[in-house]
Amino acid sequence: MYPNILRHPGPTPIPKKVLQAMNQDMISHRSEEFVRLYRETTNRVKPIFGTIQDILLLPSGGTAALEAAAVNTVSPGEEVVVITVGAFGDYFVSICEKYGFHVHKLEKAWGEACREEDLTEFLKPLSNIKAVFATYNETSTGVLNPIDKLAHVVHTCSDALFIVDGVSCIGGAPAEMDQWGIDILVTGSQKAMMLPPGLALLSISDKAWKVIEENKTPSYYLNLLSYREWASKGMTPNTPAVSLIYGLSAVCDLIDAEGGFSQTVARHDLMKNMVRAAMKALSIGLLTSDEVASPTITAIRTPEGIDLSSFIGHLKQKYHLDFAGGLGHLQGKVFRFGHMGYCFPSDILEAVSLMEAGLQDFSYSFDPGAGVKAAQNVFLAAHRK
Amino acid sequence: MYPNILRHPGPTPIPKKVLQAMNQDMISHRSEEFVRLYRETTNRVKPIFGTIQDILLLPSGGTAALEAAAVNTVSPGEEVVVITVGAFGDYFVSICEKYGFHVHKLEKAWGEACREEDLTEFLKPLSNIKAVFATYNETSTGVLNPIDKLAHVVHTCSDALFIVDGVSCIGGAPAEMDQWGIDILVTGSQKAMMLPPGLALLSISDKAWKVIEENKTPSYYLNLLSYREWASKGMTPNTPAVSLIYGLSAVCDLIDAEGGFSQTVARHDLMKNMVRAAMKALSIGLLTSDEVASPTITAIRTPEGIDLSSFIGHLKQKYHLDFAGGLGHLQGKVFRFGHMGYCFPSDILEAVSLMEAGLQDFSYSFDPGAGVKAAQNVFLAAHRK
Repeated sequence: MYPNILRHPGPTPIPKKVLQAMNQDMISHRSEEFVRLYRETTNRVKPIFGTIQDILLLPSGGTAALEAAAVNTVSPGEEVVVITVGAFGDYFVSICEKYGFHVHKLEKAWGEACREEDLTEFLKPLSNIKAVFATYNETSTGVLNPIDKLAHVVHTCSDALFIVDGVSCIGGAPAEMDQWGIDILVTGSQKAMMLPPGLALLSISDKAWKVIEENKTPSYYLNLLSYREWASKGMTPNTPAVSLIYGLSAVCDLIDAEGGFSQTVARHDLMKNMVRAAMKALSIGLLTSDEVASPTITAIRTPEGIDLSSFIGHLKQKYHLDFAGGLGHLQGKVFRFGHMGYCFPSDILEAVSLMEAGLQDFSYSFDPGAGVKAAQNVFLAAHRK
Repeated sequence: MYPNILRHPGPTPIPKKVLQAMNQDMISHRSEEFVRLYRETTNRVKPIFGTIQDILLLPSGGTAALEAAAVNTVSPGEEVVVITVGAFGDYFVSICEKYGFHVHKLEKAWGEACREEDLTEFLKPLSNIKAVFATYNETSTGVLNPIDKLAHVVHTCSDALFIVDGVSCIGGAPAEMDQWGIDILVTGSQKAMMLPPGLALLSISDKAWKVIEENKTPSYYLNLLSYREWASKGMTPNTPAVSLIYGLSAVCDLIDAEGGFSQTVARHDLMKNMVRAAMKALSIGLLTSDEVASPTITAIRTPEGIDLSSFIGHLKQKYHLDFAGGLGHLQGKVFRFGHMGYCFPSDILEAVSLMEAGLQDFSYSFDPGAGVKAAQNVFLAAHRK
């Protein structure tokens, strides 16, 4: 009866209009209707990526598209740099190692971002780097790497491709793929894109295509040249996730209705600021500094004197408020508050209110209402502008 | 306004109850709700595969799962036999060649099946075969290979694994994976399983798991050991296609409501017989003999004196009847009438009637109503039993 208030980093809530759009009769993926749907929809996604390149759609999770980006550009034994600031950066290291790439790992403490100077220093002694991989938004820590600046460093200090995992922020964070110099940008459907899981989106620069054309990809399903060939005809090599493409078209309608993608980005920024102000007002620690904070997810430290696992369980059971726990060595130390996709300032006020109720149940010492008030103030200030 | 009558080999029509089931709020793929959904649903799919083994769910097309079956069991340079009787068998050959397997191709003319004796003869001079691959149902020709008999030959004449592409028939054709001796059976969601595209299902024998455990899979997303590890906890390694799993649960409800899976299989057999009887009554050729005919799709030869591409286009435009064309060298020579998944005898009567109307428009010489009458007779005879 009570709705589950899903404040996770994904899957995230699906708008009713998107569900309705997906709820259509199937069409053949070799029909004119499909070609029209595919072309129109992928064109409408381009501003979200900040690109004039084609958007390719893979019927898979974001991970598969990241793996595609790796195996289509790099061959076993070749050197790559992987910037890792958390669990999903480490995940990318595993993918590269699995394929026998020679990996140089630029690692930062969990909760920190990779700065320009870190990458500049790191690249200095290296040559022959085929690609630099980075996560734009590290889901495990709520860190947004300064991807525009890192792109600049990559292209200034090397000839490498810059390949970016944008899975947990594209659709909620600004992206100017072409202008910044991202060579491959990847995202998934189930995060800020407001869709169920099962569709990966990626776009590829001319420079990366040249590398891909010369690469001997040991993969069939993940062969990007085959996706490009079919995309030129408005189709996909295998049966695509037709219903998710219907849904993606409705997502584009919703973003238009919000006043364009810049408004969507501004909403995410506002929600981030509301959450952070609330936690500060409640004297609850944040894992990251404001400068590197993610617009889509916030990692929050355990409130003092509280057992985190009981607290999270209690919020879910009593208030149907569903936060995500910490990953890796942050398990039991932080929880994660997702605020991406189909999420609004009102949802932040609701979640902070319920969290305060839970804190009272756990006899946490605070001024009830203080968190909500702080979030409200950020909200009101944004509207006064 | 007019509904499109989709008589394709997939995507196929989706039942409303399945659409409604998919139309639910998202849940976290790391939650107890998900574990319950995953375990219950995969258990209910086992009878459709005829197995007591786990059913693994990949968030991908069937092709990716076929590729997973190949790369998890065979290493570059090792010898395999691929039985190909059409376009999708050839496709499997390409996958194996891409990965550098030494492929022995057992090829039959398009429209024919691979017989027991063909495989026995073929295997005789070979040794060290790691795996034999076969398509159960060849979508391009509407041939159902005698997979039970071929399994017997594989295990009698070799130590190879028997890996079966069941993409276009599982859910509509009988399958006794364990009893017959299939080592890996793969299917996709968008054919006889009555779901949108985006979910692959596969199951693996103990013998195949032993091989997989020793294989160095050069793949991350397609690593089956990782799927097995997570499946033991009722989860998947990456974000799964949650809505399709909701839908799959509803598909199992519908099969139960039909009276169990044997009834579903019987319905497919009946529809096949209705289509074939109708075409014979209209003096229109069938590509395959009755003995090897697919229960899910029928390849029909061009009616005499008619230009096939105009005829198919006319049926679609005037009557909204959507048949699939021929593939490869059968393009322009056959069209394909899909009768799988959410398709009933009434749909066959409807499609045959509309096809007859189209034949009249093209001044084809026949006795109007003859096709429908023949299909009706098959239908009535089945109900009299």
